Amino acid sequence: MSNDQPPRPSRRGFLKAGGAAVAAGASLGAGLAASQAAQAATAKTAAHSADPQMAVEPFYGTHQGGIVTPQQSHTYVAALDLTTEKREDVIALLRAWTDAAARMTQGNTAAPLPAGGTAQAAQPADNLTDGNADSQAKNQSYSQAAKAAPDSGDVLGLGPCGLTITFGFGPGLFTKDGKDRYGLAARRPAALVDLPRFNGDQLIAQKTGGDLYIQACANDQQVAFHAIRQLSRLASGTAVMRWGQAGFVSGPRGQTPRNLMGFKDGTNNPSTAKPQLMNEFVWAGHTDDAPWMEGGTYTVFRRIRITLEHWDNTEVGFQEQVFGRHKYSGAPIGKKNEFDPVDLKEEDKDGNPVIPENSHVRLSNQASNNGAQILRRSYSYNDSTDFYIERWPPWRQETEYDAGLVFVAHQSDPRKGFIPINDKLAKFDMMNQFTTHVGSAIFAVPPGAKPGSYIGAGLFET
Amino acid sequence: MSNDQPPRPSRRGFLKAGGAAVAAGASLGAGLAASQAAQAATAKTAAHSADPQMAVEPFYGTHQGGIVTPQQSHTYVAALDLTTEKREDVIALLRAWTDAAARMTQGNTAAPLPAGGTAQAAQPADNLTDGNADSQAKNQSYSQAAKAAPDSGDVLGLGPCGLTITFGFGPGLFTKDGKDRYGLAARRPAALVDLPRFNGDQLIAQKTGGDLYIQACANDQQVAFHAIRQLSRLASGTAVMRWGQAGFVSGPRGQTPRNLMGFKDGTNNPSTAKPQLMNEFVWAGHTDDAPWMEGGTYTVFRRIRITLEHWDNTEVGFQEQVFGRHKYSGAPIGKKNEFDPVDLKEEDKDGNPVIPENSHVRLSNQASNNGAQILRRSYSYNDSTDFYIERWPPWRQETEYDAGLVFVAHQSDPRKGFIPINDKLAKFDMMNQFTTHVGSAIFAVPPGAKPGSYIGAGLFET
Repeated sequence: MSNDQPPRPSRRGFLKAGGAAVAAGASLGAGLAASQAAQAATAKTAAHSADPQMAVEPFYGTHQGGIVTPQQSHTYVAALDLTTEKREDVIALLRAWTDAAARMTQGNTAAPLPAGGTAQAAQPADNLTDGNADSQAKNQSYSQAAKAAPDSGDVLGLGPCGLTITFGFGPGLFTKDGKDRYGLAARRPAALVDLPRFNGDQLIAQKTGGDLYIQACANDQQVAFHAIRQLSRLASGTAVMRWGQAGFVSGPRGQTPRNLMGFKDGTNNPSTAKPQLMNEFVWAGHTDDAPWMEGGTYTVFRRIRITLEHWDNTEVGFQEQVFGRHKYSGAPIGKKNEFDPVDLKEEDKDGNPVIPENSHVRLSNQASNNGAQILRRSYSYNDSTDFYIERWPPWRQETEYDAGLVFVAHQSDPRKGFIPINDKLAKFDMMNQFTTHVGSAIFAVPPGAKPGSYIGAGLFET
Repeated sequence: MSNDQPPRPSRRGFLKAGGAAVAAGASLGAGLAASQAAQAATAKTAAHSADPQMAVEPFYGTHQGGIVTPQQSHTYVAALDLTTEKREDVIALLRAWTDAAARMTQGNTAAPLPAGGTAQAAQPADNLTDGNADSQAKNQSYSQAAKAAPDSGDVLGLGPCGLTITFGFGPGLFTKDGKDRYGLAARRPAALVDLPRFNGDQLIAQKTGGDLYIQACANDQQVAFHAIRQLSRLASGTAVMRWGQAGFVSGPRGQTPRNLMGFKDGTNNPSTAKPQLMNEFVWAGHTDDAPWMEGGTYTVFRRIRITLEHWDNTEVGFQEQVFGRHKYSGAPIGKKNEFDPVDLKEEDKDGNPVIPENSHVRLSNQASNNGAQILRRSYSYNDSTDFYIERWPPWRQETEYDAGLVFVAHQSDPRKGFIPINDKLAKFDMMNQFTTHVGSAIFAVPPGAKPGSYIGAGLFET
């Protein structure tokens, strides 16, 4: 990647002119690193064997990245509340976010560094991109710069790391406290419902809701967090942070990763390799109330704490009854292999269901939910420990893990997806003994942007 | 790795008989995975180029691992409080911890799985070690097991990931509330002082202190956390969790990593490649009051929150004055390269010091501290966000990042290391505007164990 931002008109032209190779991340100043990155991105798609630090995901396109993108190893998701009363401030923010996100996903700093900056891409031949060797003279010019640092600089040398940045709109963008702040109330999609209160919800206000959503996913925790830090700073004066949440997934390569409960998570997801499934279950179609959402999706976030100490003290056999799957193989109970189909009708010799009535797999299965499916793209979280005071016997007051699941699910319509599925789970799932939903949010995630435009342009400009 | 735990006497014999190759992690049931792991460990030592998932670090030895071990990418550190009044319970716990830690660092589960378990090592040729293919019959036997799962199983297939586990003893092991609970009061080392209250400390009880310390470091966050989960569970009835803290470091390969402030961190550490420096500054020598600590070290933990939002709004030039180093190169101010020596006497043309009086580099430098050095082995932490109420103008009440530094420093005597250095920093360091110490602890970390013995045997048995 080059140090200086290429002139924007040329860059736009280049991006417009290009096809897959451009989408995969080559930039105008295409030197060694950009070529390597593009190759890495291609190789990754093909074989998942490339250096994850050098992976590059496209930013512009029909859909936003980070939805059907193969899951990166880390995430940082955040919600902000708008503090401005001006529609044009919101548009300006979305423009600034779009430009910064396009830069960062391609391995650049959020804004050009003043005295010849440095891209994130590791590039031994270029002293700047390894973040090591700017000269004393350059440092002095930084010292003289009369404004805040254009980028926190903490990921210099780390590479693009397959970063995707996904933006979404919460109900508060359309109406807040009964006020139509930005003239958008009539454009709110019917599918962007306020989530109902589910059984057992113990939602914390500071981890729930939000007017704007940013989801950064990358093959490195600091790269994901870096993106949120820069975008949050760009919102200064327009929006404030409501909550942020780091997450990770530790997967054996090429296998379904295990969550912190030790079970494989995501086995029964609809295949992102099947466009017809994505069109049916993930991408929003054309609707008269919100034509600007076509090609977008609706994203539900839940912060689900798991009392791992209690879970770890249960028998494996019990754990398998809770999930409805075998722990080590991931197979449905009674089956041998992870991807064996879930047979909800199978009974044992006494006529009892092999997969228990209140098991997670049965309750969340498509067949139990009128064919509904959602695309889960969840991460584990580990926010260390906190001091908890239990409200039930034996009234423990103790330090416990603040760890669990950053549940993220994308769907074409949450009224047919997350809401009925979770309603059932909240009432009957045996897993509820160990899980507590403490954060929740829903967002309309618009389609991708065209180069030169910005995320959400369809909402504001059509 | 074999599925069944090898008979212990043979295993001991094997470990005793072996040299470096054994220390590097080959186990008795040395199949394909163990050979691969040993090769990987060797390769890593030689060139840092091996698969970080397959790296294996020795557990038994003169010193505990995780001190001069090349820093892994992730950590989970935890402190527990002893609840038992019986000396033999403490010994039994240390024995159990030693055995489980030896197993886990070598890529095995904390305890053998009942029906033929599975090692962590990824091994395509072995259906068990990839965590996929246990049979239905085996699953049923798990279901019939009448006790809690022997291991949470969440890292099956992830590999040893260079895991090290380091144990330490807090002041409360020796005396608590004036009571000599375990007959150890007279054996408390003079160097294990209670840390003084430093300027600006805002310590939170639930993140401070602790009778026992466990530090797990690995090239994967879930592997580090997994180790703490299993060890904490083994302490049931003897000790309870006081605090836990996850951390990470995102480094460009082969370079000094940057902390969340965007500066390289650890440049001026004493070189672990120089045994005489380690003997002088890191390893405890023989002392009459605590001969059992010879070959151990004293570890100071501080949880240092950084208000990144505020930091990100400052100029790079100002940030460099705070650190005393250039941001991008890592060079001392006025110098060109990261490893150029820090010249505290240099003055500019007006006679002012080039490295500011109250900069972090000057105040923490060996030359400012009577030659004292400590071995910092710190990680960044990112516990998402919290709602903060500031106690000074402009009285902000807002969601902020709960992120910063898991400061971990090892030293031969904290009275000559951390305490005088931090006393100076706490009073004068310009960085204090952005940092708050919210957690703190000090531990005596005993030397390594011999196979068949346990960590801390010297304290209890000599």
